[in-house]
Amino acid sequence: MSEPCIICVAITGSVARKSDNPAVPITVAEQVESIHASFEAGAAIAHCHVRNGDGSPSSDPEKFAALKEGIETHCPGMIVQLSTGGRSGAGRERGGMLPLRPDMASLSVGSNNFPTRVYENPPDLVSWLAGEMRTYGVKPEIEAFDLSHIFRAKEMAEAGELLGTPYVQFVMGVKNAMPVDREVFDFYVHTVHRLFGDDAPWCAAGIGRHQITLNEWAAAAGGHLRT
Amino acid sequence: MSEPCIICVAITGSVARKSDNPAVPITVAEQVESIHASFEAGAAIAHCHVRNGDGSPSSDPEKFAALKEGIETHCPGMIVQLSTGGRSGAGRERGGMLPLRPDMASLSVGSNNFPTRVYENPPDLVSWLAGEMRTYGVKPEIEAFDLSHIFRAKEMAEAGELLGTPYVQFVMGVKNAMPVDREVFDFYVHTVHRLFGDDAPWCAAGIGRHQITLNEWAAAAGGHLRT
Ligand SMILES: [Zn+2]
Ligand SMILES: [Zn+2]
Ligand SMILES: [Zn+2]
Ligand SMILES: [Zn+2]
Repeated sequence: MSEPCIICVAITGSVARKSDNPAVPITVAEQVESIHASFEAGAAIAHCHVRNGDGSPSSDPEKFAALKEGIETHCPGMIVQLSTGGRSGAGRERGGMLPLRPDMASLSVGSNNFPTRVYENPPDLVSWLAGEMRTYGVKPEIEAFDLSHIFRAKEMAEAGELLGTPYVQFVMGVKNAMPVDREVFDFYVHTVHRLFGDDAPWCAAGIGRHQITLNEWAAAAGGHLRT
Repeated sequence: MSEPCIICVAITGSVARKSDNPAVPITVAEQVESIHASFEAGAAIAHCHVRNGDGSPSSDPEKFAALKEGIETHCPGMIVQLSTGGRSGAGRERGGMLPLRPDMASLSVGSNNFPTRVYENPPDLVSWLAGEMRTYGVKPEIEAFDLSHIFRAKEMAEAGELLGTPYVQFVMGVKNAMPVDREVFDFYVHTVHRLFGDDAPWCAAGIGRHQITLNEWAAAAGGHLRT
């Protein structure tokens, strides 16, 4: 018997703005509407960023609270995952919404390059974010931008820094980080099974045009999907 | 016929000081003496950091020049590799010794975490260092602290940013970066062969107590050694 495939919807990354694509939902009402459509279509997890009025990334806890409430009202049972990613703020600001006790939050456990800069996740910030997630009962989704991040999650789990079995998301196709490569993808899956057990869930996200490829690979290999 | 095994000696990392280990060579004269002993014992490459009088890391081109000259005088034919690693300086300071035209220089092509901080190698600095190495005819040794760094080297080689076939060093055992893991090591070797050809040379460095393990693995798998 195969498990049902969990679909995780990230309706807005933190980068696209209305000027790039007029269909990108910006306001909380637009986001809730878009997430609701995905929920009706079967998505189980909503991966959420919030934005300022001009479309720039925000980490305002009030915006996150409104979005979380909208999803809970309109999409009962949907898992709310709030982003603590670095595009929306610096340092501990990134975790300011964790007291809202969302079901999940993203957690980057290492650093890597992004297209034009360093994606900085210093060890003390990672530990602090993980601690906040423990305090508020938030399940982390480990964002693996590189292979060592999966091992780092293992070390953190062994040290009691993460609640339960780590849920790892492979992120591929970001320029200057890990490219979309089938052998690496297979090694990622193998590594998750080796470190966390054959039943450990995982998901995969491809950036931009790579999303379809990663969805196909993940669906065939028993992972969850990010759309 | 198997190729001779190249031994690369890194007599001083950038971290240890006299206070940690009184045997660590600090002055240029002490370093040359220590490298010379390794050279007599068969080491072919000297991987060099320089230090201030108090033992702290330096990136002073004059110190590098004196060390390079000392090695060339006392160890004729030994390959001189100067470190452009981030412990000794910030930004372009790190490449200030490249006009000395050493045979090789280390080049980190991505970012990752170190025990207490982010090891920052922003994309524009990486490109600048690679450009200086091209300008001065310096062969880079790619420091792979994580898997994506090997892929980044491939992209840079294809873009004409690196001279010749990349020479990759796997670095394992740094806390918060890639741990010492046999399956990862094997996948690293496989990836180098896949991306750069079966004859592409590579080497491996384990940090501290891991050095012996990595030497054994590398010698058995056809790589070069860092001692
Ligand atoms: Zn997901
Ligand atoms: Zn996100
Ligand atoms: Zn070496
Ligand atoms: Zn070094």
